[in-house]
Amino acid sequence: MPEKASPSSVGLVTTESVTFDTELRLESGRLLRPVTLAFESYGHLNNDRSNAILVTHAWTGDAHAAGRHSEDERKPGWWDNMIGPGKPLDTDRYFVVCSNVLGSCKGSTGPTSINPATGSPYALSFPVVMIQDMVRAQKLLIDYLNIPSLLSVIGGSMGAMQALSWAILYPETPRSIVPIAGTGRAAPMAIALNGLARQALYNDPLWKKGNYKPDAPPESGLALARAVGHISFLSAASMKIKFGRRFSARDGLFDFFGKFEVERYLDYNGNNFVRRFDANSFLYLAKALDLFDAAWGFDSLEAALEHIACPSLWFAFSSDWLYPPEDTELLIDTLRKLGKNVEYHRIVSDYGHDSFLVEPEKFTPLLVDFLRRIDESSDAQRPL
Amino acid sequence: MPEKASPSSVGLVTTESVTFDTELRLESGRLLRPVTLAFESYGHLNNDRSNAILVTHAWTGDAHAAGRHSEDERKPGWWDNMIGPGKPLDTDRYFVVCSNVLGSCKGSTGPTSINPATGSPYALSFPVVMIQDMVRAQKLLIDYLNIPSLLSVIGGSMGAMQALSWAILYPETPRSIVPIAGTGRAAPMAIALNGLARQALYNDPLWKKGNYKPDAPPESGLALARAVGHISFLSAASMKIKFGRRFSARDGLFDFFGKFEVERYLDYNGNNFVRRFDANSFLYLAKALDLFDAAWGFDSLEAALEHIACPSLWFAFSSDWLYPPEDTELLIDTLRKLGKNVEYHRIVSDYGHDSFLVEPEKFTPLLVDFLRRIDESSDAQRPL
Repeated sequence: MPEKASPSSVGLVTTESVTFDTELRLESGRLLRPVTLAFESYGHLNNDRSNAILVTHAWTGDAHAAGRHSEDERKPGWWDNMIGPGKPLDTDRYFVVCSNVLGSCKGSTGPTSINPATGSPYALSFPVVMIQDMVRAQKLLIDYLNIPSLLSVIGGSMGAMQALSWAILYPETPRSIVPIAGTGRAAPMAIALNGLARQALYNDPLWKKGNYKPDAPPESGLALARAVGHISFLSAASMKIKFGRRFSARDGLFDFFGKFEVERYLDYNGNNFVRRFDANSFLYLAKALDLFDAAWGFDSLEAALEHIACPSLWFAFSSDWLYPPEDTELLIDTLRKLGKNVEYHRIVSDYGHDSFLVEPEKFTPLLVDFLRRIDESSDAQRPL
Repeated sequence: MPEKASPSSVGLVTTESVTFDTELRLESGRLLRPVTLAFESYGHLNNDRSNAILVTHAWTGDAHAAGRHSEDERKPGWWDNMIGPGKPLDTDRYFVVCSNVLGSCKGSTGPTSINPATGSPYALSFPVVMIQDMVRAQKLLIDYLNIPSLLSVIGGSMGAMQALSWAILYPETPRSIVPIAGTGRAAPMAIALNGLARQALYNDPLWKKGNYKPDAPPESGLALARAVGHISFLSAASMKIKFGRRFSARDGLFDFFGKFEVERYLDYNGNNFVRRFDANSFLYLAKALDLFDAAWGFDSLEAALEHIACPSLWFAFSSDWLYPPEDTELLIDTLRKLGKNVEYHRIVSDYGHDSFLVEPEKFTPLLVDFLRRIDESSDAQRPL
């Protein structure tokens, strides 16, 4: 079976790309044209085009959510344990789509794209984008794929913000949403942490106000910026489990430059990250995270959430201090007051914000059951 | 009353300095000579030299704990609301001493000091120091002041580590200790945050592996390092109270460089900090914080704490995520198992690690009562 990279994998996949030669009006008022989106899809759209699930990715994610691009690709897509035949997002049953967000650097239009007005990369002339803009671009893709309604929009972290925005902006399209480890708006702690990451890049002389050379990117600034983010994805408890106070075996305790294992790990990951992500995209997406407010464009949070027409399933994680459960619970309370169909689970996990990636088994049974109910209730409503 | 800077102030004060031409053997095994300590004192030592309280400062603190150096000094000493006539550390009753720690840059020997072997500043040739080394240097000062026993050693954060180390290393000297918002050993989260601060400085090209010019210090790196620390001193709740999601009134929401108020505040404070603190000292003290382990040099934490001979009063703060209450409670449980005289209060406060500076009224009545009891029991034991 050469097409299967591993048992129950979606196998070999290709990232596709579509360019919309249309003017996308952004929340900022600026117009963007053209808009290219990279995307992947897994499984098959059924005859009545009713089994599509949109998966929305987090900050530094991409369209490559499952399978492998080649037999020797080192790692499968970022949510491969969730997407495939017999997996929670079962590709024998569902047609799963994932697209790279607007503003990213993984095939969709972003600051590394060529500005057609100048023939050069946008860099900092790229417009500031909001989560809502990402969702509007995704709507172009879903229309292009001729998908009239989505069985669900599912995503964690920044993906949760997109799922929520889908239900507010396009209440007629998703038949459910599943925001995981999200928030209705970034809290000042999350903003402050992103502020450190920004400053780490601004301080790097190679950043050059965003006009770095492709062959001389601001690596040390980006590695530090990533390490700031990384800390916010972990928790005090998970660090104790993983590292404790172990000191690097290679260093002397009294060496000035000696490191604890937790530092070495953050360095290692930060330095790997610079090879796979663009500094300006990192900054644009950080800004989108910070600016996110579900109430944006409405008089109040209630007025925004009032638009939601579909059932929603929410997960938050006890040790998540980036988007703590209380933030999700504020949304849940408001949705319940509005009489919306809402299901919420506060999952006990030590793995901080990353819990949704580290311990998916703690919530996937609930997710599978929810999707089946949505699917079946849709069947029931559909004319025979 | 020209000597009083404000009512109930200790008035005008001077930082004194003493140099010990002795070889201090550090925990690293390295020898340091000479050792200069800057210190201030308030109130008067009584006839039987029994009313001295040593105040130990935090990371970037100094010997200037109370009063003013001149009538027009903008701010009084860092703990002025605690030290003075009629204040919790009542200088009508107690003789209060505060000394700048070894490794700092505020008058005591540290990396900015001249290395007598070379005639140049130590910079990174300064030996790594531990909290225990700071305490050994303080013992030289207390002996020099001819103080046979201390009524108490009181300090917050890094000051709490020093207070605890005093009771372990010199059980015959303090008659009590009051560690506030401390820990028995830095957790990996605290180490990871300091790791970010270190990297921020290492990334600054002006840092030059510690050999920066005095007139060209690594300001942007140090400001960012300070901002990392600053975040860890606050809490998610205090940031919500203080900043919420307010955006800088001077910036446009869609400006790439636009800032939220919380970012502007961290920038402002970081940039102020670089004018008053040395980058290498900052790094040496961060290392001392990370290396701190009360069990250092003993077979176990129990074996270390077994040495404590005096009563201890402990405060931890509910929203402190740098040195969370659980860390203090581990010490308390151990001390109680060992049958030690220990009093512990978990103070509910929204102000994170900084609570001990922001809401002193929540614990000072308990502190005042404790000190009075120590003072009176000492009187009772003293031969008439």
